[in-house]
Amino acid sequence: MTDGTRARIPRDPANDYTAEAARARRDFASEQTGAKLDHVAHFSQPIDALAGNVENFIGDAQVPIGLAGPLVVHGEHARGEFFVPLATTEGTLVASYNRGMRLLRESGGIKTTVVHENMQRSPVFTLGDALEAREFGEWVDAHFDSIRVACETTTRVGKLSRIMQFAVGPLRYLRFDYTTGDAAGQNMVGKATLAGCEWIVANHPKHPQFLLSGNIDTDKKHSAINTLLTRGKRVVAEATIPREKMRAIMGVDTHELFNHRQISMAGATLAGSANNGAHAANGLAALFIATGQDAANVAESHAAITYVQLRENGDYYWSITLPSLIVATYGGGTGLGTQRECLELMDCYGIGKAHKFAEICAAVVLAGETSLTAAIVRGDWVSSHDRLGRNRP
Amino acid sequence: MTDGTRARIPRDPANDYTAEAARARRDFASEQTGAKLDHVAHFSQPIDALAGNVENFIGDAQVPIGLAGPLVVHGEHARGEFFVPLATTEGTLVASYNRGMRLLRESGGIKTTVVHENMQRSPVFTLGDALEAREFGEWVDAHFDSIRVACETTTRVGKLSRIMQFAVGPLRYLRFDYTTGDAAGQNMVGKATLAGCEWIVANHPKHPQFLLSGNIDTDKKHSAINTLLTRGKRVVAEATIPREKMRAIMGVDTHELFNHRQISMAGATLAGSANNGAHAANGLAALFIATGQDAANVAESHAAITYVQLRENGDYYWSITLPSLIVATYGGGTGLGTQRECLELMDCYGIGKAHKFAEICAAVVLAGETSLTAAIVRGDWVSSHDRLGRNRP
Amino acid sequence: MTDGTRARIPRDPANDYTAEAARARRDFASEQTGAKLDHVAHFSQPIDALAGNVENFIGDAQVPIGLAGPLVVHGEHARGEFFVPLATTEGTLVASYNRGMRLLRESGGIKTTVVHENMQRSPVFTLGDALEAREFGEWVDAHFDSIRVACETTTRVGKLSRIMQFAVGPLRYLRFDYTTGDAAGQNMVGKATLAGCEWIVANHPKHPQFLLSGNIDTDKKHSAINTLLTRGKRVVAEATIPREKMRAIMGVDTHELFNHRQISMAGATLAGSANNGAHAANGLAALFIATGQDAANVAESHAAITYVQLRENGDYYWSITLPSLIVATYGGGTGLGTQRECLELMDCYGIGKAHKFAEICAAVVLAGETSLTAAIVRGDWVSSHDRLGRNRP
Amino acid sequence: MTDGTRARIPRDPANDYTAEAARARRDFASEQTGAKLDHVAHFSQPIDALAGNVENFIGDAQVPIGLAGPLVVHGEHARGEFFVPLATTEGTLVASYNRGMRLLRESGGIKTTVVHENMQRSPVFTLGDALEAREFGEWVDAHFDSIRVACETTTRVGKLSRIMQFAVGPLRYLRFDYTTGDAAGQNMVGKATLAGCEWIVANHPKHPQFLLSGNIDTDKKHSAINTLLTRGKRVVAEATIPREKMRAIMGVDTHELFNHRQISMAGATLAGSANNGAHAANGLAALFIATGQDAANVAESHAAITYVQLRENGDYYWSITLPSLIVATYGGGTGLGTQRECLELMDCYGIGKAHKFAEICAAVVLAGETSLTAAIVRGDWVSSHDRLGRNRP
Repeated sequence: MTDGTRARIPRDPANDYTAEAARARRDFASEQTGAKLDHVAHFSQPIDALAGNVENFIGDAQVPIGLAGPLVVHGEHARGEFFVPLATTEGTLVASYNRGMRLLRESGGIKTTVVHENMQRSPVFTLGDALEAREFGEWVDAHFDSIRVACETTTRVGKLSRIMQFAVGPLRYLRFDYTTGDAAGQNMVGKATLAGCEWIVANHPKHPQFLLSGNIDTDKKHSAINTLLTRGKRVVAEATIPREKMRAIMGVDTHELFNHRQISMAGATLAGSANNGAHAANGLAALFIATGQDAANVAESHAAITYVQLRENGDYYWSITLPSLIVATYGGGTGLGTQRECLELMDCYGIGKAHKFAEICAAVVLAGETSLTAAIVRGDWVSSHDRLGRNRP
Repeated sequence: MTDGTRARIPRDPANDYTAEAARARRDFASEQTGAKLDHVAHFSQPIDALAGNVENFIGDAQVPIGLAGPLVVHGEHARGEFFVPLATTEGTLVASYNRGMRLLRESGGIKTTVVHENMQRSPVFTLGDALEAREFGEWVDAHFDSIRVACETTTRVGKLSRIMQFAVGPLRYLRFDYTTGDAAGQNMVGKATLAGCEWIVANHPKHPQFLLSGNIDTDKKHSAINTLLTRGKRVVAEATIPREKMRAIMGVDTHELFNHRQISMAGATLAGSANNGAHAANGLAALFIATGQDAANVAESHAAITYVQLRENGDYYWSITLPSLIVATYGGGTGLGTQRECLELMDCYGIGKAHKFAEICAAVVLAGETSLTAAIVRGDWVSSHDRLGRNRP
Repeated sequence: MTDGTRARIPRDPANDYTAEAARARRDFASEQTGAKLDHVAHFSQPIDALAGNVENFIGDAQVPIGLAGPLVVHGEHARGEFFVPLATTEGTLVASYNRGMRLLRESGGIKTTVVHENMQRSPVFTLGDALEAREFGEWVDAHFDSIRVACETTTRVGKLSRIMQFAVGPLRYLRFDYTTGDAAGQNMVGKATLAGCEWIVANHPKHPQFLLSGNIDTDKKHSAINTLLTRGKRVVAEATIPREKMRAIMGVDTHELFNHRQISMAGATLAGSANNGAHAANGLAALFIATGQDAANVAESHAAITYVQLRENGDYYWSITLPSLIVATYGGGTGLGTQRECLELMDCYGIGKAHKFAEICAAVVLAGETSLTAAIVRGDWVSSHDRLGRNRP
Repeated sequence: MTDGTRARIPRDPANDYTAEAARARRDFASEQTGAKLDHVAHFSQPIDALAGNVENFIGDAQVPIGLAGPLVVHGEHARGEFFVPLATTEGTLVASYNRGMRLLRESGGIKTTVVHENMQRSPVFTLGDALEAREFGEWVDAHFDSIRVACETTTRVGKLSRIMQFAVGPLRYLRFDYTTGDAAGQNMVGKATLAGCEWIVANHPKHPQFLLSGNIDTDKKHSAINTLLTRGKRVVAEATIPREKMRAIMGVDTHELFNHRQISMAGATLAGSANNGAHAANGLAALFIATGQDAANVAESHAAITYVQLRENGDYYWSITLPSLIVATYGGGTGLGTQRECLELMDCYGIGKAHKFAEICAAVVLAGETSLTAAIVRGDWVSSHDRLGRNRP
């Protein structure tokens, strides 16, 4: 069976980012499968801007956006009221986040803080044995400045902050941690780390072999290392909710919530869950799609640690920490038509906005936590979904 | 600070799913923020079909779709050649998956199998002490048939297959496992489980308290329990790649790949990764957005276990197991304009197609694994991204 | 370098369990190394009883035993006051557990419950592909009764309760769960499962290959599967401690303890800890050594989930769940001189005592949790160790 | 129910480490329980040396020691042949480790390397919010030298090497990493860290509250953080085993072993195991008991990552990495009668020997891995246990 006998997707080697090339592929696909692609053909995004974002372009997915807010944020970078675009097809989601935003703004708003940041690529070097690998590691530490220079030749923005080391047998896994400005930076740090590794190979007396990823960077994957050591941005959202606000808006008492919390944390521990809270992924996925983030990063970004305290007066301090939130306000899909508009809606497009956007993401997550958790405790979770969800033809 | 003093998002209580209501919200948002929403306003999806999918609708996100394929699948349900729509803004992604599809079709195609399926809701009951909780558990086992009947009164499709039990102190976490037909089924099983729990409370002599989620269902969260016990569908994709095909198409030798595999598995173990392969989340997120899946389920669905063997003749057997793939071909966002078209492109829309679509998802993931892994081993990963990615204004 | 040129440890092929054989080895060791083995030579345990417990016997380690108690237990099997032998060389340990036992007996004692039990061996079968593996799994389910009969031919005590199945690629991991009476049962279930596997190979049409362990039984290893699905016994200890008792005996307020608990649980989640409590391993290791348990099982047995609630009146409900406590009161090392005496001290030696002993283990652990946790909260942890520990020559 | 009404364990306030005090407690225990403690009363260890090792001393547990070896080690610190004392009551264990030692010495011996070391105490500080906590963290970094001085006032041996930081909400977990010479050092670093924390509280403008353990040091607990960042010593043992030696001594082919390895690693990943090898805990527990280590540290020490490669000529490179091996050759139980003799047997007692002993521990573990794994692959695992184990009265 050779590939030549099969139908091949048409490409235009001269310029593949044209309406004609897209139409040719749609026609081809319809011919091969019998399916129509009318809605897919309907979009306003200029095609020629898509080089670098997609190959074999045929049209656009239309994902409905609901508006939630205002979200009141008291961050270092995000300050004030925000209206939040959430792209989703899951009924109830926007309503539920909106409800949480109301609770939190009536409680005085949400504090947000980016407490750490680094993006990484983690190559692995194979040495002759564990002793050589240890000595190699010492050599890397001693030559950090030169490696940094080599890495940073490839990027104006990325800055290498440290190289962590992890030893397994004759292997030395290195974790190159960078700050990456307003880009998510996975490609930037890949390129920079490659340059650093090539410098190492050229200069280390043993010229050891390496792989650019030893699989501890866990790109697009949840991991314990990300939760501990941060991938992207580590962001905290926190709020103190007066007991009477919780009761009035959510219909639950803060003592009930706190009792529930003990149970849900035991459950998360039992289950080995990436997140001991409720459902960070819901808000993040919706916000990511609306704003041109890489939706695959939901894998890493959905991890979270909830920490709460019940105050003596019955008020409820609620924090959520996202240890590996990966977002950008520049590059990737952020500049495309609807995506840029959605970022601009929150004044988060472009240079200098990544921290602001990260803070908004965390605030959105916290709003969603309050709403779903209260619904579970109050027991009206299913009835809400019955009312707002369930879209069956 | 009261909510009344703030600007509120307009809603039309009579019918909020109209062009006017959407425009009113866009105008409001633009007025509040100064941002334009021109692209967002451009869509072909009928608004009145969106009830049940989104609230406070303002327009659509346009996510570019690239076409990959043909993907050759020899599944139980998916059989033949498929052209796969991938919605993404990440340059290289479609090209990379396409390359993997080529390798695998030239290697004879991909076997796919749904090996297990269940969707769950996991309530938790609080008893007086651990002994009472154990006795409660025995009672639940003894009354399984009645509980099942109670659950299934709420759904024509969902079938309760078992109730697993997990004990912590005085708590009894129950895991209600269902099959859910062609829906993802989270809401369906929530409603059914609520009915089951209410039956339990009414009939058990102690009328114990419960929460509908004890946080071990880990909805929208990766977890160890999902990897072990399956959430959604457990699907395997597998292929045997001739040594010369790997060398000709990917430029790497299967022995190198196998050596790399030992290193990347050690890395995944070290990192505590949810997935010891490469990047399932990339293909899944792109496919999920294109086909109206809940993108938040990337959190669960990206988990994977890769298992390979190097044959004596140098051929490479490669399998990937997705233990918690959550997909639907009916309900949720699957019926919307572009989403339905993309499902129809693979003949995967509607009743009776969920297994077929799950098999295609796994096959896509395997294709992506081969391409990225080979690029890492060959060392041309960064240069590919440089060529195809990096879309900076 | 061949083995023949080296000194070899003497063995007596006729009967190696004699004073002479032991002495010959001690003399040999002293000659080879220059070390004296005088204390090692001092023991009261009859040598001829050691066949089946150790090979190449040279003498005994003397591990000091401290007595703690009375421990007040209200279990199903353990009822009343117990004096607990703890074999340790770590200063403070006995004193600390003793302090916790006092707190808990003054608080009315400890409830204990064995909520689940099973010991397992987990073979793995390799099939041709994932589909064959799934069909194999269905065949196993259909032939459960015959497999059980085959397994149980090898043991009077072990009873096969279920076979769980986990799929990865073409592999089918089976988890044979047994009850094993008063033995820990690892060898018993190994032998039984081998018989079951041989029956499968003989009777299944494909006669598939298997390995007796696929490494998901995680014998002598902590694992998520053990925490979820139980290995050995799942035991809960629980107590409600009046606020004033906590203050009087431990010098801390229950509100402080509860605040601390939120912090220590966040820490355990962050760290990916096998145990979100304090130090179950300390008491278990000491009790295991004293009573002839396999101390390597500390690996599995130290896992725990703490769940607490602060009552409205300030009393503190404290539970700890040990999901994989592996203990025996019969077989292994339980019948040896000091080990049997230590079991008899708690009326836990022999047939019918394993549940009782498991309950005592959990109660001991809970006592230790209260003492160490209070010391951390009160801040006198270091000073206690300074007073009681630090044994430097 | 008051404590005064119960029998209390006798103590001698003047000097509790006497034969009389021990006998008084044994008599008391026998009287209370009816059990004899004759064997327990038989020991040669001087009682007055036990202050600092145990409280309420009543006698000794006698744990049989088997001798294994010679173990051929080519480490940095351990070089040559060693005879290894293993204290255990599990039949087959000594024989199995001995078999592995033979394989490895006939294969040229075992390379061992301590690749990293640190012992830690991890306090947690509570600040007003996440921003304050971040600023606190920056302050700690800026005052590292002063904190180090404060810590090191408490110890001649311990050296603070770094303070890592982890943020959750308003909490700042600090991980004080030390080298601790030849002691395991848990108490040493606890005391030093307390001094450091007190310096911080006194000097930081906010005088923040702290707990000396925030539960991320995971003392006596397995954890992901230990596997990543090392607790105690990170030690590698490695060997290359000729194919014919494996066949001659173990009866298995290295290709079979390598195939098995893929399966057992998939199993370990599936199970969420702390160790993807076979059974490090067995050898470590036996060695720990013999040499006066804290047996509770089996919880941390049993974690391991196995990494192997099959050479082109069929030889088998086998490495195991113990990321959190906690051992001492000084302090704790190392100076007691039998314990010291067992350390001296390997020339590992006292100052300057901890690295040597750590290397021997890792070499022993590797020997045990080869033997058990080969037995699983060959299928004679159960029959060996039948022959050597099963000690039923």
